[in-house]
Amino acid sequence: MTAIRYPDADYAGRIERARSSMADRNIDVLLISVGSDLPYLTGYEAMPLERLTMAVVTANDATLVVPLLEAPRVIDRGVFEILPWAETDDPIEIVRRLMGSAGQAAIGAQTWARFLVQLQRSLPLVGFTDATAVMSGLRIVKDADEIDLLRRAGAATDRVVSRLRSIRFSGTTEAALARHVMEMTVEEGHDVATFHIVAAGPNAASPHHEPGERVIAPGDCVVVDFGGRLGGYCSDTTRTFHVGEPGAEYAEAFAALQAAQMAGTAAAGPGVAAQDVDRASRRVLVDAGWGEWFIHRTGHGIGLDGHEDPYLVEGNDSVLEPGMAFSVEPGVYMPGRWGMRIEDILVCTADGRESLNNSPRELAIVE
Amino acid sequence: MTAIRYPDADYAGRIERARSSMADRNIDVLLISVGSDLPYLTGYEAMPLERLTMAVVTANDATLVVPLLEAPRVIDRGVFEILPWAETDDPIEIVRRLMGSAGQAAIGAQTWARFLVQLQRSLPLVGFTDATAVMSGLRIVKDADEIDLLRRAGAATDRVVSRLRSIRFSGTTEAALARHVMEMTVEEGHDVATFHIVAAGPNAASPHHEPGERVIAPGDCVVVDFGGRLGGYCSDTTRTFHVGEPGAEYAEAFAALQAAQMAGTAAAGPGVAAQDVDRASRRVLVDAGWGEWFIHRTGHGIGLDGHEDPYLVEGNDSVLEPGMAFSVEPGVYMPGRWGMRIEDILVCTADGRESLNNSPRELAIVE
Repeated sequence: MTAIRYPDADYAGRIERARSSMADRNIDVLLISVGSDLPYLTGYEAMPLERLTMAVVTANDATLVVPLLEAPRVIDRGVFEILPWAETDDPIEIVRRLMGSAGQAAIGAQTWARFLVQLQRSLPLVGFTDATAVMSGLRIVKDADEIDLLRRAGAATDRVVSRLRSIRFSGTTEAALARHVMEMTVEEGHDVATFHIVAAGPNAASPHHEPGERVIAPGDCVVVDFGGRLGGYCSDTTRTFHVGEPGAEYAEAFAALQAAQMAGTAAAGPGVAAQDVDRASRRVLVDAGWGEWFIHRTGHGIGLDGHEDPYLVEGNDSVLEPGMAFSVEPGVYMPGRWGMRIEDILVCTADGRESLNNSPRELAIVE
Repeated sequence: MTAIRYPDADYAGRIERARSSMADRNIDVLLISVGSDLPYLTGYEAMPLERLTMAVVTANDATLVVPLLEAPRVIDRGVFEILPWAETDDPIEIVRRLMGSAGQAAIGAQTWARFLVQLQRSLPLVGFTDATAVMSGLRIVKDADEIDLLRRAGAATDRVVSRLRSIRFSGTTEAALARHVMEMTVEEGHDVATFHIVAAGPNAASPHHEPGERVIAPGDCVVVDFGGRLGGYCSDTTRTFHVGEPGAEYAEAFAALQAAQMAGTAAAGPGVAAQDVDRASRRVLVDAGWGEWFIHRTGHGIGLDGHEDPYLVEGNDSVLEPGMAFSVEPGVYMPGRWGMRIEDILVCTADGRESLNNSPRELAIVE
């Protein structure tokens, strides 16, 4: 729960675009609680606690219902009326009143189910849908200020990778290396480090391995996947290291992986379906005989959330547009033996894509 | 997203008690996603991501639906059938199938609203209620192993307080002191530090102040409220410091606060209504003329979650029982001027209460 300072932004414009999106979908009221939709609209991030925080946006009003003891943390940006509730008030009743005669509500994707159940009981005639339909279209295309924050966060992770390439891996535990990665993530300019995967040897076959007490040893591959937040925006990059030279099989797989990552990157651009980036990366690995071991989608969008639209996955035929930011991160995972992944964050541009990660993608041989 | 290693526990027994609680409430299926109910039942904590993780518990079956690439992180404790889903599968459809002909479902309190909306659309005839009704009764009374973890976590925070009492506050920023608190929280034995409030001078009037760049100076009060997790279980303690001797008004308020905290502690015990602990603390501050500035409830339960049942708040007439753990944390907040809070974690015992925090509660005068 580390404080994120959200930058100034055109919050009034965002509310107006949200209202336009609501009108297109016949949504009368937007209800946004924990998660990144809230800071996107208000510049305020709620702690995920049992006390309800909820932005209530109708065609004419915008109110932020907030626990009284959180109210001093809210910066009034002149767009929302801030309505604190005291410990013995009923926040559901307050929201119900603000909703007026709304018939259709869109509720923030990450809102606690507890609150949705309470609202549904209080308002049995109101229809509730997922606010992602309203919000994703706004958030998916980043403006220049947002891209600048993503770019700065990406450059900070590149500097961490650069430092990693010159340190000794052998003899260190995954957990200790992960702590060092986290420290460097902050030192290089993030407000906070949010995650750090360090997976050595057979542990690298688990894409989301939790760093543990395994001591990294000669002959180990080491997948390092980490990121943080800068001004609210996320970074996320993966590079693969090897203690000493790899064997022939690993080197061959890595060559295919690097080609797959390049193919995905080259495929990304305006007008391209999200699934076609996945297909471009996947085809290289399938053709080289490693497709069975590429067990996840090729990428995910990134912004205020580490994972958000657009998802680069088979079945997603929505089209990339300039300003969309997403990872391209194929991997190969051989259970019980080894794993590898290369991940960059890209931004779709008017005529192609910009990579926000530019550290070397080759297998880094370390001691 | 730091890994928590959940200890071995009687997961089979917990499932049976959950089933008994379901039967009492005519609940056919329990659906548990992100949040602490999941590790309580399974020993596994899901990352709060867009890929659905959900435990599905019926009278006869217990299945853990988990994204394929998270599956290697799940320790099979022999109670749940682990059912991984691949990137192009539909996890809602998998859950729907596991629910069979269930008519009444209880859904985990912190489940993302997105998934509840999807389940409701897929199963329009099923009634959904908040699983807190099923789970809270199980989790609210801690067994000896759980209390031992809470006790060890509390002792670790006491050691941090002891170290804090001998360091220089003046000239340090809130943010720097908060980082030091976080480091010490881990050094003293927590798996992870989860929060750290350091609020100096007028910032102390905001109960959940985010540590910032204010330089602590002579004459400042400093509220330090922090905690971490040990084996999954939370700590949470608050002590108030003062740089140099306080003025008469502050000293007088602090004397009342300490009396209020003692009164709340003395009131806590088996058979006592939760709200009566709040009333006992509040009465002392009201009688001394500070009641208006005590703007929050007196306490909250604690366990796998930092905040959980029982809440010590006016209106909660549920009765404390041996094994319940909760904070007693009155505070006084003078907007624009100063603040103060004292917080201990208590466990209700057969004949009273045990305090898991035992560092001195007096105002600590520091340099």
